[in-house]
Amino acid sequence: MEVGFLGLGIMGKAMAMNLLRNGFKVTVWNRTLSKCDELVEHGAAVGETPAAVVKKCKYTIAMLSDPSAAISVVYDKDGVLEEICNGKSYIDMSTVDADTSIKISEGIISKGGRFLEGPVSGSKKPAEDGQLIILAAGEKGLYDEAIPIFDVLGKKSFFLGQVGNGAKMKLVVNMIMGSMMNAFSEGLELTESSGLDPRTLLDVLDLGAMANPMFKMKGPSMLQSKYPPAFPLKHQQKDMRLALALGDENAVSMPVAAAANEAFKKARSMGLGDQDFSAVHEAIKGPKHP
Amino acid sequence: MEVGFLGLGIMGKAMAMNLLRNGFKVTVWNRTLSKCDELVEHGAAVGETPAAVVKKCKYTIAMLSDPSAAISVVYDKDGVLEEICNGKSYIDMSTVDADTSIKISEGIISKGGRFLEGPVSGSKKPAEDGQLIILAAGEKGLYDEAIPIFDVLGKKSFFLGQVGNGAKMKLVVNMIMGSMMNAFSEGLELTESSGLDPRTLLDVLDLGAMANPMFKMKGPSMLQSKYPPAFPLKHQQKDMRLALALGDENAVSMPVAAAANEAFKKARSMGLGDQDFSAVHEAIKGPKHP
Amino acid sequence: MEVGFLGLGIMGKAMAMNLLRNGFKVTVWNRTLSKCDELVEHGAAVGETPAAVVKKCKYTIAMLSDPSAAISVVYDKDGVLEEICNGKSYIDMSTVDADTSIKISEGIISKGGRFLEGPVSGSKKPAEDGQLIILAAGEKGLYDEAIPIFDVLGKKSFFLGQVGNGAKMKLVVNMIMGSMMNAFSEGLELTESSGLDPRTLLDVLDLGAMANPMFKMKGPSMLQSKYPPAFPLKHQQKDMRLALALGDENAVSMPVAAAANEAFKKARSMGLGDQDFSAVHEAIKGPKHP
Amino acid sequence: MEVGFLGLGIMGKAMAMNLLRNGFKVTVWNRTLSKCDELVEHGAAVGETPAAVVKKCKYTIAMLSDPSAAISVVYDKDGVLEEICNGKSYIDMSTVDADTSIKISEGIISKGGRFLEGPVSGSKKPAEDGQLIILAAGEKGLYDEAIPIFDVLGKKSFFLGQVGNGAKMKLVVNMIMGSMMNAFSEGLELTESSGLDPRTLLDVLDLGAMANPMFKMKGPSMLQSKYPPAFPLKHQQKDMRLALALGDENAVSMPVAAAANEAFKKARSMGLGDQDFSAVHEAIKGPKHP
Repeated sequence: MEVGFLGLGIMGKAMAMNLLRNGFKVTVWNRTLSKCDELVEHGAAVGETPAAVVKKCKYTIAMLSDPSAAISVVYDKDGVLEEICNGKSYIDMSTVDADTSIKISEGIISKGGRFLEGPVSGSKKPAEDGQLIILAAGEKGLYDEAIPIFDVLGKKSFFLGQVGNGAKMKLVVNMIMGSMMNAFSEGLELTESSGLDPRTLLDVLDLGAMANPMFKMKGPSMLQSKYPPAFPLKHQQKDMRLALALGDENAVSMPVAAAANEAFKKARSMGLGDQDFSAVHEAIKGPKHP
Repeated sequence: MEVGFLGLGIMGKAMAMNLLRNGFKVTVWNRTLSKCDELVEHGAAVGETPAAVVKKCKYTIAMLSDPSAAISVVYDKDGVLEEICNGKSYIDMSTVDADTSIKISEGIISKGGRFLEGPVSGSKKPAEDGQLIILAAGEKGLYDEAIPIFDVLGKKSFFLGQVGNGAKMKLVVNMIMGSMMNAFSEGLELTESSGLDPRTLLDVLDLGAMANPMFKMKGPSMLQSKYPPAFPLKHQQKDMRLALALGDENAVSMPVAAAANEAFKKARSMGLGDQDFSAVHEAIKGPKHP
Repeated sequence: MEVGFLGLGIMGKAMAMNLLRNGFKVTVWNRTLSKCDELVEHGAAVGETPAAVVKKCKYTIAMLSDPSAAISVVYDKDGVLEEICNGKSYIDMSTVDADTSIKISEGIISKGGRFLEGPVSGSKKPAEDGQLIILAAGEKGLYDEAIPIFDVLGKKSFFLGQVGNGAKMKLVVNMIMGSMMNAFSEGLELTESSGLDPRTLLDVLDLGAMANPMFKMKGPSMLQSKYPPAFPLKHQQKDMRLALALGDENAVSMPVAAAANEAFKKARSMGLGDQDFSAVHEAIKGPKHP
Repeated sequence: MEVGFLGLGIMGKAMAMNLLRNGFKVTVWNRTLSKCDELVEHGAAVGETPAAVVKKCKYTIAMLSDPSAAISVVYDKDGVLEEICNGKSYIDMSTVDADTSIKISEGIISKGGRFLEGPVSGSKKPAEDGQLIILAAGEKGLYDEAIPIFDVLGKKSFFLGQVGNGAKMKLVVNMIMGSMMNAFSEGLELTESSGLDPRTLLDVLDLGAMANPMFKMKGPSMLQSKYPPAFPLKHQQKDMRLALALGDENAVSMPVAAAANEAFKKARSMGLGDQDFSAVHEAIKGPKHP
């Protein structure tokens, strides 16, 4: 099975490598072409442009950094639209909002191509291990054909219906994540301020009904005020904002998410936007009485 | 090892049974004495009064329903204080606030006894399976001696220092639980209002970094608007209130917990106080446009 | 002084009438031309199109219902842009967001015209009485020339600098209004639930440091659960959303406004969007225990 | 009419002076007796103890600093209870919680005396000008007899029913005040962060439907980050806490007040508890990006 792959950032590179390792023929492209070298060593071919990749491959996957990059790769000169056509398929796994996804879908379909969005839940490690969770939406027939690809990239894929639903589901998941992070951080701070050992709280939580990988992974570094960016706080806050906007559209009142969002904004105002989203802990601890 | 056990409610009965099964000699007492029968069939002796149990046993454990019951069993006529003395120990595993625990501790110590509080995290099933988490605080020497007991009752015990710390740690844990439940419920409602399938959200969450037993256990019944009371909402809201009060004492600002608490209060005003705490979902869904 | 006036809704009609009464020559236009009749009886001339009004008058004022109407009157066929030119001025007093205002400004200026935005604080009664507060921004020279107009329409005008600042200031004012309304409503509900007479609260508030016309005006009808729409709740909630978005841009954490916004959303979900914004009281009272 | 007056702090002194100026015979007492001197110059008599004052006067008014002082003056040696009896009346105008007020009431009534609570709304200046608002509750007959006194001390008095209702009404008023102060402060900060002049916001607010003495009085000093304590922040936060507790008792969900309370707690954690309650502005501004 021949697959094109556009975008070799941290996530994309790991995903393309997994496809190669599992016997797919992969043609890669990246804006900075030198990033293709390592994949070429493992057997990948290189396309000069997104259009060239699409011309060569029946299926092309994209994993780009943000909505504007995702739009640009499709609509710009030498972009996907120049070669997409009846019989070819485009699967965008970038994290974008529903409107961007719909705009890309419309372009692809207007040329006769098939489209699927497939944002993922999971970061670098699950990408490397083929353990992502894939939130697909769009053309059901294409989803069915893409199952062998998704089986390599992720531990589970979901088909969610019309284009935009994948983006929306991801927002909900990240909103819950942001509120949970605030709940966790408030608990750590209350523990410490009450004269208890917050490391014990981590142990207690990890044994009970609320035990989850995120608390286990982030807790120890939060207690050391270390926040190496796995998922930058400014992106988390943006997702909270978009989730609240989705709630606004549908008249869903979400006071806990709203309070969590304001804490993330406070953290941004403290200059913590580029640190990990767990740095909201600094906003919750706040400035102390001198 | 001979152990007294006061209080044979859902939790206490399961715990006393585990002690019997593991070879302890157990003398039980319960306000309604007939509740002792099943334990007697399994080899327990019966004490006529709390004082009688303490007279007979070196170690006495209590598992009572609320602070007033915990106080009454110690301070009333025929209570623990009448027989507690140098060489005897009292371990109160009831869920009470720090002030109640300190009051009981003072009574026991004034008579020469040793005291340990040991509230547990976990409900009926973990109690039956000996899988509780024990948050002990008080006399360290007594804690060390009680390890064989705790090994039977729980999967893990913690020693947290001075009396009151066990109660406080339990409040923090329950506060995080309450905020998480709100985050979860808001996410379910946003999913449904956005035209997505909330059962898929449950599946996605269960595969990712936020996967936890509580979401897995409560989610499906919440989607059916069913809230059989494992932990009553009014007790959850009381614990949020007490945790916020603890934060107030220590000037810890906790806006997410505060927002969650107001949602639980709204649920109480809707008459949901005796249902499971996951019934806060009804307050978040709210009354709909007719 | 000859002045054009576009838009004769509740506000616009009252404002144009005030100009006529104070000796201005006024040429009016309205999408439904019959709405011009009453003003013609008082001496107004009628323009067939926005372009015709601008052609005839050196100064043209607009008071339109929403951003899309404000854009349409300028950019559509027979619109303002067809006749605006060097020497002519356009003053848009509609309530629009900063982006809309900037877009209109750019169109006017590109044709050589001068532009001022001038959203107002105040509703029907102040419009009739010439007691509006005018939040002007844009071309300072035009503002100075327009003072005689503003003196007739309002009790006070402010010049706030560059285009967009008038819109932003209005959002801040309405955000404070929305939070105050929630504070007031929570207080009324707490009074009633505590067995006190909320009418007494109204009296006490009206005598003290927080006395304000809004509490005085809205309180009595809120106690009767009556919310005749002076300012529709859905518009208030939209302004809260936009103010929070402005805060998001500038990383300003505003937890009280965020909580108030969620209450307005709850009220929308209850079908109260077209009632007065004081109907948020119904969301705060909430469904009661049967 | 002969009146006793216990407590000559800032408020009490101004009130007793007003009684003297209006022709009342006044016998004063203060823990530090030298504080009585100025009043003696204006014609007051001095009582050696609270009991001595009560013995001499048919009506005794108290204006003490806090609940413990209010209790102590009644229940301690040489206190009010030693001389209160059938035919004598006690009016406590101190700001205390409902429970304290009820405890004092019970003591007075058990001796045959009559009791009225009468907390006031207003601070130093209204006290001096006889412009307080009096929230009376307790014995209605005594209230009717006390009207001439209240007419001198305040511009308006209310009779609110049973003892405790005055204290509760005052909590509601102060809760609204705290939420309004947060709404105001968020608005000021949003204005400044958006590049607008917050002094203009003060002017705009003062002309519109939300105009109120508090914004007018506190705004200018808040913009200079000056918070001379008229009403200390820690007392405001305590009143928010008690109002929220009253809401908890009655299952009233108040998310805006809860968010405001958390902001006051944040301000306390920053060491601002002894400054004016408007210092919550510092917590809302927060630490800025360096």
